[in-house]
Amino acid sequence: MRILGIDPGTGILGFGVIDVGGGKFNMVTAGVIKTPAHTPLDERLEEIFDGLNEIISETKPEAASIEKLFFARNVTTAMSVSHARGVAMLTCKKAGLSIAEYTPLQIKQTLTGYGRADKKQIQEMVRLQLGLNQVPKPDDAADALAAAITHSLMSR
Amino acid sequence: MRILGIDPGTGILGFGVIDVGGGKFNMVTAGVIKTPAHTPLDERLEEIFDGLNEIISETKPEAASIEKLFFARNVTTAMSVSHARGVAMLTCKKAGLSIAEYTPLQIKQTLTGYGRADKKQIQEMVRLQLGLNQVPKPDDAADALAAAITHSLMSR
Repeated sequence: MRILGIDPGTGILGFGVIDVGGGKFNMVTAGVIKTPAHTPLDERLEEIFDGLNEIISETKPEAASIEKLFFARNVTTAMSVSHARGVAMLTCKKAGLSIAEYTPLQIKQTLTGYGRADKKQIQEMVRLQLGLNQVPKPDDAADALAAAITHSLMSR
Repeated sequence: MRILGIDPGTGILGFGVIDVGGGKFNMVTAGVIKTPAHTPLDERLEEIFDGLNEIISETKPEAASIEKLFFARNVTTAMSVSHARGVAMLTCKKAGLSIAEYTPLQIKQTLTGYGRADKKQIQEMVRLQLGLNQVPKPDDAADALAAAITHSLMSR
């Protein structure tokens, strides 16, 4: 099974594609879609839609795992992320992927068994699970891979 | 010029299409896209995308005017509206419409000259500007028409 993980954001959207088989994970690709800050929102959302569609048609995942924002101190940030997140969900839905959502807490608990794990511990678990020498960079790509691994472990 | 106004929301998204010419406004159509509450978010966003695309291909507007949420007491509501709003913006962008955004305050001031106008005053101005006997129903459709009229008045 091939899973696309997404860490949504308007400025930077992280993505990571993994293959799951025989209890092992392999990274197919990971990276970010960056959109320039001083560009109209409609253009940025279009770049996210087009960019994700390109990744999906190149890697052909069956499922998407999208990080869920369920709390935000800053309403402006929450609204900005949610615009991108809505577009990311729509893109995956239109491409025929099954879609799962996980909160940061679920991702932490699934990967480390510990809801208060910090960013470094999560990234180290991503590195170990994927058998990589280095933690994938940037952080948003590693977070997207964490979401993808979580979906595989949760759906067992 | 034909303008599509949108009052975004996940549960109910209001739309209203107007024609502007010779300083007069005419309503082409108005209504709402409702999505069922206990349906997965990805399906609701797809219904919004498909529904808006249908309205656009039937009415062929040149511009979209989308109400902007710049403040929300409730973060959960803000995030929900923003998912739908992101999809609505993407849909208009992909359909080649020019896109403008107005805050509720801008809409109130443009329509009534008064930033503290209440919902009823706005709706009455929508009715008068469009030369209708009745205020368009439901409220979300009237709000969408208000956004469309605002765009016309602001771009003069």
